[in-house]
Amino acid sequence: MTDSQLTHFNAEGRAHMVDVSEKNTTDRTAAAIATLKMDAHTLELIRQGKMKKGDVLAVAQVAGIMAAKKTSDLIPMCHPIPLTKVDISFQERSDTELDVTATVKTTYVTGVEMEALTAVTAAALTVYDMCKAVDKAMVIAEVKLLEKTGGKSGDFHRAT
Amino acid sequence: MTDSQLTHFNAEGRAHMVDVSEKNTTDRTAAAIATLKMDAHTLELIRQGKMKKGDVLAVAQVAGIMAAKKTSDLIPMCHPIPLTKVDISFQERSDTELDVTATVKTTYVTGVEMEALTAVTAAALTVYDMCKAVDKAMVIAEVKLLEKTGGKSGDFHRAT
Amino acid sequence: MTDSQLTHFNAEGRAHMVDVSEKNTTDRTAAAIATLKMDAHTLELIRQGKMKKGDVLAVAQVAGIMAAKKTSDLIPMCHPIPLTKVDISFQERSDTELDVTATVKTTYVTGVEMEALTAVTAAALTVYDMCKAVDKAMVIAEVKLLEKTGGKSGDFHRAT
Amino acid sequence: MTDSQLTHFNAEGRAHMVDVSEKNTTDRTAAAIATLKMDAHTLELIRQGKMKKGDVLAVAQVAGIMAAKKTSDLIPMCHPIPLTKVDISFQERSDTELDVTATVKTTYVTGVEMEALTAVTAAALTVYDMCKAVDKAMVIAEVKLLEKTGGKSGDFHRAT
Amino acid sequence: MTDSQLTHFNAEGRAHMVDVSEKNTTDRTAAAIATLKMDAHTLELIRQGKMKKGDVLAVAQVAGIMAAKKTSDLIPMCHPIPLTKVDISFQERSDTELDVTATVKTTYVTGVEMEALTAVTAAALTVYDMCKAVDKAMVIAEVKLLEKTGGKSGDFHRAT
Amino acid sequence: MTDSQLTHFNAEGRAHMVDVSEKNTTDRTAAAIATLKMDAHTLELIRQGKMKKGDVLAVAQVAGIMAAKKTSDLIPMCHPIPLTKVDISFQERSDTELDVTATVKTTYVTGVEMEALTAVTAAALTVYDMCKAVDKAMVIAEVKLLEKTGGKSGDFHRAT
Repeated sequence: MTDSQLTHFNAEGRAHMVDVSEKNTTDRTAAAIATLKMDAHTLELIRQGKMKKGDVLAVAQVAGIMAAKKTSDLIPMCHPIPLTKVDISFQERSDTELDVTATVKTTYVTGVEMEALTAVTAAALTVYDMCKAVDKAMVIAEVKLLEKTGGKSGDFHRAT
Repeated sequence: MTDSQLTHFNAEGRAHMVDVSEKNTTDRTAAAIATLKMDAHTLELIRQGKMKKGDVLAVAQVAGIMAAKKTSDLIPMCHPIPLTKVDISFQERSDTELDVTATVKTTYVTGVEMEALTAVTAAALTVYDMCKAVDKAMVIAEVKLLEKTGGKSGDFHRAT
Repeated sequence: MTDSQLTHFNAEGRAHMVDVSEKNTTDRTAAAIATLKMDAHTLELIRQGKMKKGDVLAVAQVAGIMAAKKTSDLIPMCHPIPLTKVDISFQERSDTELDVTATVKTTYVTGVEMEALTAVTAAALTVYDMCKAVDKAMVIAEVKLLEKTGGKSGDFHRAT
Repeated sequence: MTDSQLTHFNAEGRAHMVDVSEKNTTDRTAAAIATLKMDAHTLELIRQGKMKKGDVLAVAQVAGIMAAKKTSDLIPMCHPIPLTKVDISFQERSDTELDVTATVKTTYVTGVEMEALTAVTAAALTVYDMCKAVDKAMVIAEVKLLEKTGGKSGDFHRAT
Repeated sequence: MTDSQLTHFNAEGRAHMVDVSEKNTTDRTAAAIATLKMDAHTLELIRQGKMKKGDVLAVAQVAGIMAAKKTSDLIPMCHPIPLTKVDISFQERSDTELDVTATVKTTYVTGVEMEALTAVTAAALTVYDMCKAVDKAMVIAEVKLLEKTGGKSGDFHRAT
Repeated sequence: MTDSQLTHFNAEGRAHMVDVSEKNTTDRTAAAIATLKMDAHTLELIRQGKMKKGDVLAVAQVAGIMAAKKTSDLIPMCHPIPLTKVDISFQERSDTELDVTATVKTTYVTGVEMEALTAVTAAALTVYDMCKAVDKAMVIAEVKLLEKTGGKSGDFHRAT
C-alpha cells in the first residue's frame, strides 16, 4: 500500500477486514486524548464528586476501559485484539476544560490506535451523560491520537 | 433535582441508574453532530470512495446506527431505550472538514441525547479507522448535542 | 412507500433505521423455518443424543432463543424489539433432513420476522458446529419466513 | 401452571422463552443480596480504597449496574426488560463480611428478579477480581432474592 | 475421536467447549457461501442500489463482517478466535439468485468454518431485512461450507 | 506488588486494567464451584427434567459456557482471554443441594479464575431462573475458586 490509498477495500471496491496474517507480532502501544469543554460550575461539581465515594470520573474511567474491550464490536473493520493494558487518566486543562487520556498496549500483529480512541470517547460521553442535567451544552472539543509505537508502518508522535 | 446538582448519585454518593419509572412516556428526539478535520487529500479520497460500490461513509453510517443501539451497553448509567428511528448523514463543511449528523427518535420515558452522541462518535471513529493508513493526524472535533425535544425538562436548541 | 421500492434508505440514498414512531402497537407474531440436510448417519447420531442428558438439539435450541434476542445487534437496520415469546422446535422431515422452526411474539410497533429467521439460522448453525467433525458437507437449506401476523402491511402466509 | 411444575418447557419438553404477551403491565420491583466473606485484612484494604478517588466498590457498582442491563443476554430464557432503575449499595456486615444489595424497577409484563440477582453477583465477582491478588480464598455467599413486588403471582418477602 | 462420533460432549454426555489447548497453531482459512432466491424485480432493485451511495449490499457486507466477529457469542460451543481477515463478496448467479461468499483467516489452534458460515448467514439475513417490504417470500436457499484449509483434520473442498 | 496491596489501581489511585504484557505465556487452568440450596421438591423436579429432552441443567450448562466467554465484558478490569476449554458439570450434594463445577483452560499471559467463577455463577443463576416459579427462596449458597494452576504467582488449591 502506498501512502495515498485507503485500505479496507477489496478488489470489488467493497470494505473488508484487511488481512493481517502476514504481519509480525510486536509490542504495540497507543495513546489518545479527548478534551471536554464545559461550564466552570460543571467542572467544579465533578471536582467535588472526586472527594466522594462515587464520582463521575470513576464511572467514566470504568466506561472507557470497558469500551476499549468492545472496539472491534463497534468499529466494523477493526480486528479483535488481545489487549494487555488499558489505563485512563483525567487532567484539568483549565477551569472549563477536562482532558481524558488513554494508553493501551498489546503484543499482536496489528495496532491499538482505535482502542485508545474508543476508550477516551466512551469516557468523555459518560462524563457528558452524568452531567447533562446541568450542562447540555458541554462539548467534546477534540478527540485525537497522541502517539503510537510498534509495527512496520513506524511510530507516530503528534506534533504539539 | 435543582439545576445545580448532578444526578446519577444515590444517597451514599455512589452512581446509580436514576429512577425514571414515574416519568411520562412522550415522543422524544435528539440530534447531534461531530466534525472530522483531515487533510484535503484524505477527504478527496473519501469523496472518490462515494463513487464506488463500497465507500467509507457507507460503513461509517452502519457503524453509527449500530452504535446507537449499543448506547446503554457503553454508557454505564444509560437506560435501555426502544429506539424508533436512527438516521445519519454526512456533509462537507469545507475541503478539510466533514460533518456527521445523527437524528434519533423514541416514544419513551427518557430521552435519546446519548444515543445521538454515541452514533456520531462511532461513525466518526469508523471514518478515522478506515483512513488512518493515510492520515493518522485526523481529529474528531466538536462532538455536541444540536437539539433535543420532548420530556419534562424542556427542549434544547443549541445557539449557533 | 409503494410495494415496489426498498425502504431503509434516507433522502441521500443511504441506509437508515426507518422511523416506526407513528406505527401502531399491536400483537405481532412470526414463524420461520430452516431445513438441515445431512448424512443419515449424522441424523442418527443426533437422534441418539436426544436420549442422553445433553444433546445437540438442546444446545441448538438455547442458541436459537438467545440469538433471537440479539437480532437488532446482528442485523444493522433492525429495531430493538421487546420479545414476549420465543419457541423453537425440531422435526425430522426424512432420514437426512431436519427442520428447525421458530415462533416469536411481541406487542410492539414493528414485526418480528427477522427475529424468527435469526433464531432458526443460529440454531441450524449450532447443529452444524456440533456435527461438523463428522459431516462437514451438511447444508442449511431453505431458510424462509412461514408466516407473520399483525401490523398494517397485512398478514403473510407462505403458499405450500 | 400449578405451583408444582417448572415453567420454561414447551410441549416437546424443551426449554423456551415463556409467552408473557397476555400478562399485565404493572410496576415491578425486586431486591437481591450477596454477601462476600473475606479476610479482615482484605476488607480493610477495600475500606481504605473508599477514601481514595477510585475504589473497588465504585468499580463493582458500575459492573453491577451494567450487568443488570445484560441479564437477558446472560440468562437464556429471560425476556429483555426495559429497566427504569438500578441501584446498588454496599454494607459491612462484620469485619470479614461485605453485603452487596441491588434494587431494580420496571413497568412491564414480567418481573426483574433475575436482574437484581445478576447485578449483585456481577458486583461481587468484580470485588473478587480486584482483590484476588491478596485473597484468592474469598467466597461469594448467600446470593438470594430479598423481595419482589408487582405481577400476578404475588409479592415475595424473604423471611429473616 | 473417530470419524463416527460427535465431539462437544463431556463424560456425563453434556455439551462442553472442547479442549483445544494441545492443538497446533497453524494458518487456517475457510470459505462459505449462501444463495438467496428472490423475485427478479427485487434483484433489479438491489442492483440499482449498487449505483447509489448507500446500497443493500454495502450494509449486508458490514453486517457479515461484524457477525464473523460475534461467532463465539452466537454459537455456544465455539472458541473465541483472533480473526486476521474477513472478506465478503456478492455475485449474481442468475436473474433471481444472489450468492454471498465469505473468506476468513486466522493463525490459531482451531478453524474458522463457523465464522465463514456465520458471516454469509448474517449478510443474507440483512439482504432479506432490507428487501422484505417488497419480497417477503425471498428464501436463503443454501448455506454451506466451500472449503477449509489448515489443521490436523485435513483440508475440505466441496465437490461441485 | 507485595501480598498486602490491591492491584488494579494506577498512580492516581484509579482503577485500570493492569499491564500483563511482560508476563509469560503458560498453560493455565482454574476450577470453581457454586452450590445451590433449594427445596427437595425442586431438586426432584430438576432431576426428572434430566430424563427429558430439554432439561434445566442442559440450559444452565450452555449459559455457563457462554458466560465464561463474556467474562471480560462483565468484569471491568478483566483482560480478554483466548479460552481453549470450558467444561461444566453438576452433582447432587444432598437432597436439597446441587453443585455446579466449572473447569477452564487457556495458554496465555494471565489466568482464568474469573472465567471459571463467572461460568458457575451464570449456570447457577440460570437454574434459579428456570425454577423460580416453584421456589423463589432458592439460594446460591457459596461461589468459590477451587483451584488454579499456572502463572508466576503459584498454584492455589482450596483447603477442604
